[in-house]
Amino acid sequence: MTLEQYGQGAKAASYILAQASPSQKNQALAEAARILKEETQSILDANDRDLARAKEKGMTEAMQDRLRLTEARIEGIAEGVRQVIELADPIGEIVEGTKRPNGLEIIKKRVPLGVLGIIYEARPNVTADAAALSIKSGNVCILRGGSEAIHSNLAISKVFRKALACAGLPEDCVQLIEDTSHETAQGLMRMNAYVDELIPIGGARLIQTVIQQATVPVIQTGTGNCHIYVDAYAQLPMALEIVDNAKTQRPSVCNAAETLLVHQDVAEAFLPQVATLLLSKNVELRVCEKTAAILKGAGIDTFVMASEEDWATEYNNLILTVGVVDSLWAAIDHVRKYSTHHSEAIVTENYGHARAFQEAVDASCVYVNASTRFTDGFEFGFGAEIGISNQKLHARGPMGLKELTTYKYLINGNGQIR
Amino acid sequence: MTLEQYGQGAKAASYILAQASPSQKNQALAEAARILKEETQSILDANDRDLARAKEKGMTEAMQDRLRLTEARIEGIAEGVRQVIELADPIGEIVEGTKRPNGLEIIKKRVPLGVLGIIYEARPNVTADAAALSIKSGNVCILRGGSEAIHSNLAISKVFRKALACAGLPEDCVQLIEDTSHETAQGLMRMNAYVDELIPIGGARLIQTVIQQATVPVIQTGTGNCHIYVDAYAQLPMALEIVDNAKTQRPSVCNAAETLLVHQDVAEAFLPQVATLLLSKNVELRVCEKTAAILKGAGIDTFVMASEEDWATEYNNLILTVGVVDSLWAAIDHVRKYSTHHSEAIVTENYGHARAFQEAVDASCVYVNASTRFTDGFEFGFGAEIGISNQKLHARGPMGLKELTTYKYLINGNGQIR
Repeated sequence: MTLEQYGQGAKAASYILAQASPSQKNQALAEAARILKEETQSILDANDRDLARAKEKGMTEAMQDRLRLTEARIEGIAEGVRQVIELADPIGEIVEGTKRPNGLEIIKKRVPLGVLGIIYEARPNVTADAAALSIKSGNVCILRGGSEAIHSNLAISKVFRKALACAGLPEDCVQLIEDTSHETAQGLMRMNAYVDELIPIGGARLIQTVIQQATVPVIQTGTGNCHIYVDAYAQLPMALEIVDNAKTQRPSVCNAAETLLVHQDVAEAFLPQVATLLLSKNVELRVCEKTAAILKGAGIDTFVMASEEDWATEYNNLILTVGVVDSLWAAIDHVRKYSTHHSEAIVTENYGHARAFQEAVDASCVYVNASTRFTDGFEFGFGAEIGISNQKLHARGPMGLKELTTYKYLINGNGQIR
Repeated sequence: MTLEQYGQGAKAASYILAQASPSQKNQALAEAARILKEETQSILDANDRDLARAKEKGMTEAMQDRLRLTEARIEGIAEGVRQVIELADPIGEIVEGTKRPNGLEIIKKRVPLGVLGIIYEARPNVTADAAALSIKSGNVCILRGGSEAIHSNLAISKVFRKALACAGLPEDCVQLIEDTSHETAQGLMRMNAYVDELIPIGGARLIQTVIQQATVPVIQTGTGNCHIYVDAYAQLPMALEIVDNAKTQRPSVCNAAETLLVHQDVAEAFLPQVATLLLSKNVELRVCEKTAAILKGAGIDTFVMASEEDWATEYNNLILTVGVVDSLWAAIDHVRKYSTHHSEAIVTENYGHARAFQEAVDASCVYVNASTRFTDGFEFGFGAEIGISNQKLHARGPMGLKELTTYKYLINGNGQIR
């Protein structure tokens, strides 16, 4: 199949899916959950083929684990699909409406985006998550997964296509590009005639490639160089819990903290405490000179000096850069310089400092006295999410079903002319 | 000045402008309107230099007219700036908010996009319009106008910079790139570190260039291949007025109609009427075979046959393609094939047809029984607009002040961790 054919099929299917009733879309999702269970063995067989090739190619054990499906993981995927059924259908909502002086009635109505191009890497569960969220939001998706997971992805996408047919919807509402060459990804990124939005899901390199090469509008997701600033007016026990949680509860995710900034007035009291706790959890500390001096003074020398690059790095790992700042505004300036506009936090009891930080820091989510780990569709009450946007156009922060929609104006007249 | 310096200046200014109060921004606009009047002569002198070069280069009289400023036109520009003062300030609105089960308070707040890159062509009034809308919406703008209008643009941008300083705001809230080489436009399009959104304003070629080359997110504006479908159930006198208005009231704009589709049941009654009226207004008709036969039968032979390309063309001129269709769905299919997703209209008294057309046609504005000419910020009640978006990401249709904003989440806790 050519890319053009995928595009044409997607566009044709999008007209039908956009008009489907909430119950018809939910039926497709229920069928998908059922068939995922029914086809567990064939999905596992396909996954075995991917894993065999991964071993041959010497893929790391950690990467193999991301690729691996098990009966329990497939049940988890099916449960995720069932949860999407329970979410409110965003399509058809009347967002607002007015009657103009000339009698024209202008109605702003929520509609699907149309066709989503989703480019992702080795995790086969993305196939199911993206397909389920697309169907529920009335969007057709063209999936372009990585070659490592192609057999698993195909098996899962076939489940969704079968489910769509069972519900009387076009199979082409979910399409997976079988050819995983570089050319198909590039072609998809420039298929403006058929694709309304591109969502890359994966590492920073994938996302940068898509931003550099795409002509289709892109949602930039996922890079989180998140900071926690412990103000002079912080409750230190609370700050300790927040830093610990934001760094260690799940270090591999984008809303984990990467840098700790501490006001100099509380640095001597706080830094030895937090260093001791984090070191006990195997966190590597990369520190500024003032931090180094304070830690040494407290008899702690298990740290390295931070390089300029460290401050700009999203580790996604048990590493934390630590710096001392001499004022709230020095903290804000540091965050402005290195932030990826994802999630930033201040710990303080000072009303003015809390407000100033929230106003001045340019990020999708700015926290006072809470862990950055809450930047997440479920935690926000949106349900499942397609990703966390860290651009400002269209959607910011967790992207749930609503963020996969647009609107159109319906204008009702009785002969109005200008 | 290097592009990097424009970018740095813009980013620094954006932090200050984002926090400016509504009255401070309005003060800057009032000063700008005042100084525009004060500096009328120096602006006219600058414009004369542009016009002299334009004549030398053999610019068409129509293009010279778009470039030309007069005392009255400058007063019109100043009046436009004063009108922006009267619009509601969009910044700081709490869009929604929730309290989560764990006590976290999540507040979604409207904030400026940050830095807008605006790339435009020969009309110097865009400099003032874009600067005024940017300031009011809390956004810094980097303007990159065409070389033809550089002296006029510089004179107008200086007025705004002076006005900003008078209001205690950074001059760099409005920047005009003086070097109008191809390289500066290209550089601006890829300046992701400093520019949050690109808005090209101008012809289809300019917009396509920006889409092809930009890595900064783009709002695609302005291309309107708009259709009017006269259904079998139309009131023909109303249809006649709507077609006339949509085609002839201002043919050069993007919301003017370019194609008329008529249901075969009313084609013999309607086509000779509409052709006679439009021909009397010097509209050229490019028609399908059925239309040709009907017009000939009525003794009208002032038309040409439409080519495949004609159906896809936005003329922005007194030319109309005319086709006969055999059903509502044939009309919808035609529109789906050729639409630029801008503004589309049906004329009908049939409830089901009206609804089906509005649902099935994928455009920012879908009209029943009204002229497509209403797709406009003022007509929608938004006030001045920066353009009409015909993409689906971020904003669709007329882009007023709200569409130049994004949001951030402010999250207030008391020690929440996951």
